[in-house]
Amino acid sequence: MNLASINFREKLSRFHDHWSPKVIAELNDYQFKLVKVHGEFVWHEHAETDEAFIVLAGRLKIELAEGMVELSDGEMYVVPRGVRHKPSAEQECHMLLIEPRGVRNTGDAGGALTAANDVWV
Amino acid sequence: MNLASINFREKLSRFHDHWSPKVIAELNDYQFKLVKVHGEFVWHEHAETDEAFIVLAGRLKIELAEGMVELSDGEMYVVPRGVRHKPSAEQECHMLLIEPRGVRNTGDAGGALTAANDVWV
Repeated sequence: MNLASINFREKLSRFHDHWSPKVIAELNDYQFKLVKVHGEFVWHEHAETDEAFIVLAGRLKIELAEGMVELSDGEMYVVPRGVRHKPSAEQECHMLLIEPRGVRNTGDAGGALTAANDVWV
Repeated sequence: MNLASINFREKLSRFHDHWSPKVIAELNDYQFKLVKVHGEFVWHEHAETDEAFIVLAGRLKIELAEGMVELSDGEMYVVPRGVRHKPSAEQECHMLLIEPRGVRNTGDAGGALTAANDVWV
């Protein structure tokens, strides 16, 4: 059995690409993923699941049809299933995502920013 | 729709009791719970689910049959389902727990430290 704690900063030091979540832990059929983001993502939705964002460093904006959510480090937000959203970050932002295994980062939108799933770091 | 971010520090300022998790968000049928701990908890297990611990402030020890896990702020650990564990903290420690709705904090052990479920803060 693995007795090692998972250190966010150490894991974040291992990659530098943006909008490409890396799995660090699993909880039943859910995954914890670290991701670095910068600039604008695409509008998309996940019809099948809610999605949790926890900001570890920097600031994240999440545009929704009804308005804007702004997150700083030590803050979280859950985008409900089926709600279109567009994350963006004016400067590099580090986040922890929690969602079921197998969720596509670009949801229904797909496209060039679609990342591979189950990439561990 | 709620567009407010959830700020861990602000939520933590609202309660002072120990070993009594407070729900701050839900993700499908999972809950995010803040908890302040100090001293020794009871040995227990959750037969039906894994349990994720993220330390926000202070230090947490999790004793397992196979050894000890030590967590500082910015670190996490997932105790697998069915694995007996005993959390403890020599000084006050603030944590975020993620687990399915309805999990009893003392698992199979029960007893005086059993906290009410679904208490939001």
